[in-house]
Amino acid sequence: MNSFATLPKPPYCAVIFSSQRTPSDDRYGDMAERMVELAQDQEGYLGIESARDANGFGITVSYWRDEACIAQWKANAEHKVAQENGHSRWYERFEIRIAKVERAYGKPQSV
Amino acid sequence: MNSFATLPKPPYCAVIFSSQRTPSDDRYGDMAERMVELAQDQEGYLGIESARDANGFGITVSYWRDEACIAQWKANAEHKVAQENGHSRWYERFEIRIAKVERAYGKPQSV
Repeated sequence: MNSFATLPKPPYCAVIFSSQRTPSDDRYGDMAERMVELAQDQEGYLGIESARDANGFGITVSYWRDEACIAQWKANAEHKVAQENGHSRWYERFEIRIAKVERAYGKPQSV
Repeated sequence: MNSFATLPKPPYCAVIFSSQRTPSDDRYGDMAERMVELAQDQEGYLGIESARDANGFGITVSYWRDEACIAQWKANAEHKVAQENGHSRWYERFEIRIAKVERAYGKPQSV
C-alpha cells in the first residue's frame, strides 16, 4: 500500500480539493476511481493523494506540471459530467484551492 | 460539524502535510489536538483542514498569511518537540509541500 504521490522537484501546481460527502452513495466510488484513472492520462498530470475520514470529510490533492494542465483537466468532457454530479449529488460542500508548490521535503519510507 | 477552514481571498500560503501513521498510538491524539490549538495562536494562522482514512493515511493542510509565518511556526519550541516525535514515533512516512494558493472557489454549504 502506497498512498503517496511520487513527484518531481518543485515548482509544480496543486489542486487542493476539500469535500464533505452527502450520505447517499449513488455510484460515487465508481466515479472517484474512474476520475483518478482519467486524470492519470492527462497532459501534465504528476500525481494524486487522497484521504477521507469516517465522517465523510475528505481532502484530495492532485499535482500538475502547470496551470494550463489544470485548466485542460477541468475542461475534460468526462470530468465535467463528474463535476456536475459532484455538485448536485455527491458533495454537500466542497472547496477548491489552486496553488503553486514552491518547496517540498519529508521523511522517506524506511526500507 | 464543520471541517472546512474559513479563509480570506487568495493569495495566501498552504502547508500540505501528507502522512502515514505508525500502528502505535502513544498519545498521538493528544499531540495532534494540542498542535491545532497551538497553531491557532500563531501569527498569520488562517485555518486548518484535516482528514485521515481507516488505513492511517492522512492529509492536513494548514493555511498561513505568508512564508514568514510558516517559518515561525516551524521554529516554535513546542512544535519542534512534536516534529521530533512525529519523525521518530508517530509517522512511518510524511511529505510536506509548501505552496502559495493563487485562486479558490467552491460549493458553499446550503442552509
